[in-house]
Amino acid sequence: MSDVQAYPGPGEPPCVVVGGGLAGSLMAIYMARRGHPVEVYEARPDMRRLQVDRGRSINLALSTRGLHALAAVGLEDEVRQMCIPMHGRMIHPMEGEPHLQPYGRAGQYINSISRQGLNELLMNTAEARDQVRFHFDIPCVDVDLDEGVAHFDDREKGERVVREASILIGADGAYSAVRQRLQRSGRYNYEQAYLSHGYKELSIPAGPQGKYLIEKNALHIWPRHDFMLIALPNLDATFTVTLFMAFEGATSFEALKTPADVEAFFKREFPDAYALMPTLTDDFFANPTGSLVTIRCAPYHHGERVMILGDAAHAVVPFYGQGMNAAFEDCFVLNELLEREDGDVGRAIAAFSRERKDDADAIGHLALYNYFEMRSAVASPYFVFRKKIERVLHRLFPEWWIPLYTMVTFTNMPYALARERAARQDRLLTLGLGAAAALACVTLAALMMGVLG
Amino acid sequence: MSDVQAYPGPGEPPCVVVGGGLAGSLMAIYMARRGHPVEVYEARPDMRRLQVDRGRSINLALSTRGLHALAAVGLEDEVRQMCIPMHGRMIHPMEGEPHLQPYGRAGQYINSISRQGLNELLMNTAEARDQVRFHFDIPCVDVDLDEGVAHFDDREKGERVVREASILIGADGAYSAVRQRLQRSGRYNYEQAYLSHGYKELSIPAGPQGKYLIEKNALHIWPRHDFMLIALPNLDATFTVTLFMAFEGATSFEALKTPADVEAFFKREFPDAYALMPTLTDDFFANPTGSLVTIRCAPYHHGERVMILGDAAHAVVPFYGQGMNAAFEDCFVLNELLEREDGDVGRAIAAFSRERKDDADAIGHLALYNYFEMRSAVASPYFVFRKKIERVLHRLFPEWWIPLYTMVTFTNMPYALARERAARQDRLLTLGLGAAAALACVTLAALMMGVLG
Repeated sequence: MSDVQAYPGPGEPPCVVVGGGLAGSLMAIYMARRGHPVEVYEARPDMRRLQVDRGRSINLALSTRGLHALAAVGLEDEVRQMCIPMHGRMIHPMEGEPHLQPYGRAGQYINSISRQGLNELLMNTAEARDQVRFHFDIPCVDVDLDEGVAHFDDREKGERVVREASILIGADGAYSAVRQRLQRSGRYNYEQAYLSHGYKELSIPAGPQGKYLIEKNALHIWPRHDFMLIALPNLDATFTVTLFMAFEGATSFEALKTPADVEAFFKREFPDAYALMPTLTDDFFANPTGSLVTIRCAPYHHGERVMILGDAAHAVVPFYGQGMNAAFEDCFVLNELLEREDGDVGRAIAAFSRERKDDADAIGHLALYNYFEMRSAVASPYFVFRKKIERVLHRLFPEWWIPLYTMVTFTNMPYALARERAARQDRLLTLGLGAAAALACVTLAALMMGVLG
Repeated sequence: MSDVQAYPGPGEPPCVVVGGGLAGSLMAIYMARRGHPVEVYEARPDMRRLQVDRGRSINLALSTRGLHALAAVGLEDEVRQMCIPMHGRMIHPMEGEPHLQPYGRAGQYINSISRQGLNELLMNTAEARDQVRFHFDIPCVDVDLDEGVAHFDDREKGERVVREASILIGADGAYSAVRQRLQRSGRYNYEQAYLSHGYKELSIPAGPQGKYLIEKNALHIWPRHDFMLIALPNLDATFTVTLFMAFEGATSFEALKTPADVEAFFKREFPDAYALMPTLTDDFFANPTGSLVTIRCAPYHHGERVMILGDAAHAVVPFYGQGMNAAFEDCFVLNELLEREDGDVGRAIAAFSRERKDDADAIGHLALYNYFEMRSAVASPYFVFRKKIERVLHRLFPEWWIPLYTMVTFTNMPYALARERAARQDRLLTLGLGAAAALACVTLAALMMGVLG
């Protein structure tokens, strides 16, 4: 293996982005717009030429934060074309008809979007600029943190590629090679925490004449307390269906050993969905069972040139639909900080570490909590009642009372602030409902005793 | 590099212990006593032949848990010979004379012991058995978790040594190679959290005619709120002195750049210690600044044969003096579980993971808290007052009220249970003191108003 030093000549070293996924591709656009040459290295093959990764989540929920970061590089309109609005959660209870729990006010919705379609748009947009180049099939194998130099393994040519960077951005996902190098630096704080639950992707096909077989403009949930099924619509009238469940135990992936086990389980737990899933058992045994990890680390940068963002810095579980949105917001924030610091990379990435950490921690916690909400609380009358009260309060005092879901999903308010405000609101609501209940009891007692009337 | 398969012949594969430190050497003794052949692989050279690692903590506090685990293999008497009892904390305030805060009742004390002396005793005891062999300078480079096979790099011979184990015990410390392999297994939970403070080892020499220059039978503390100095006695009448302080900031290791800085700092903050430290500045700049990490992970085992214990599984900061004691207790517990499970390694190591995790987490948290207690709380009159009340309560109700320090240090009660009981006692004490204060106020007011008497 020979060493090839790229950019040995004069001139600014490029911005090197490790990872050509959603965050890496968007960050490449931002950096190119700032006038930098950008080299993007992706470990996997070019998804535009080769179908990759059966069983990865193939649609995602895009909301305000993500759209805001896309709008800032002029991509909002194009992206909107690819979106299917989802106005609320369509709850499929064990008994009775499905019913919609709206996400916010009328006109507030999240968007189902194809991961692949969006990633390709971002790659194409980035590559349309002269100063951006993508390299595929070239994993990052090492990083010199102090020098800002990345080492890649060009497997096809059998060469080690060595790249000096003016800024080296690790956008290489939850299993980030750049972060793994950071983890081995001095006094690095790091945590990986897995859920005991995993997920499996399945599907509902399109109906006759390309009709959607269930409500198109909703995120469908079959909440079953210890597990759940969800479905998001695709543009081709199919739905991507995901089962979330424990890996081990009485009701678990481990317990579903045969096609007959799977059929019986779906028939019993999700009869309406089961009726629409002709490829259920094939999908079930062909697709892998994914795991769900939360990554926390600090700092997000090292020295003057190296940093991580997106899942590499703060992978979250998918239950708030904020993983991609948080990653896109990272790109927006980093760009703002580079602006604020007059392009001084060292200061900007240190500020990114400092200012972004609490928000990333907050969305990590919220996402963990939301699994409970989606698989269980949504089926509780008390939860639905509280949500209704919250909607009324929000309508009466739109600035003063904002439901947590709205703050997270439909604003750009820092996640940590949203979490704090929501905790305050929650205490207040519990107090208010308690007082109201007490008052109701007293009134009732008084009425019964004939004191009033 | 050629592959050498050891033990290719018939017979039981040996117990392989990775790491010949305190925990690894004691575990080797336990396993040999169970009748197993034991191979211990240590990455460093043999400390009995070659002085290693300037600046590692050279004495430690041995207490009940550690002694209990040593007694079970018949080593208590020999170890006691090497101990210097420390009956309490000798507090050196900024103003006034040093004074002793006893650790427990009369006759309850912790023991200052040399890390090297104890480690050598454990190695010699293990090696005295025919079926135990130590190998030095041979780091573990990989582990086959499912097969229970460890790979070592025999650097001297330029060979890869491959060892199948009946049980593979990673006792290789906070930076454990075995755990690093576990971390890359599926859904492994892992956290490394560093303090922003570090430590530096210094010394007080012996006085004339081998006299101790400060009280021999105490752990000396100079609490200064944001930092502290401590000193533990050695058998040769020297003291090992450790400075704990922030890495960065106004008062920090970073801020002490020159010998003059160090002299001025010690003169100002620790005048009585400074007067006894002729080699202060030499030691300060020759010794490294150590970092302080807490490691949390789960599970502690994989499959039927591989496990970790001691610092490899749960490194803690040193402020409760429990790192070694917890590791020795691990050895004791593992031996008990192997006994309970009739030597079924798979069941025993799974039980170890399950039953040991909460206790390890508890001592990790307690050790973090204790830094605050040692560097700040011990200097507070309210803290000292509460400790006194606790001692009285313990004397009155020896079973029912046991101070936290006593439970952790002078009993074998599970750490998690100790932590729980202490939290309960703490709430009760706060309540009681509040009630007493209120009663005192009322009584005083009544007295002043002449209602009584």
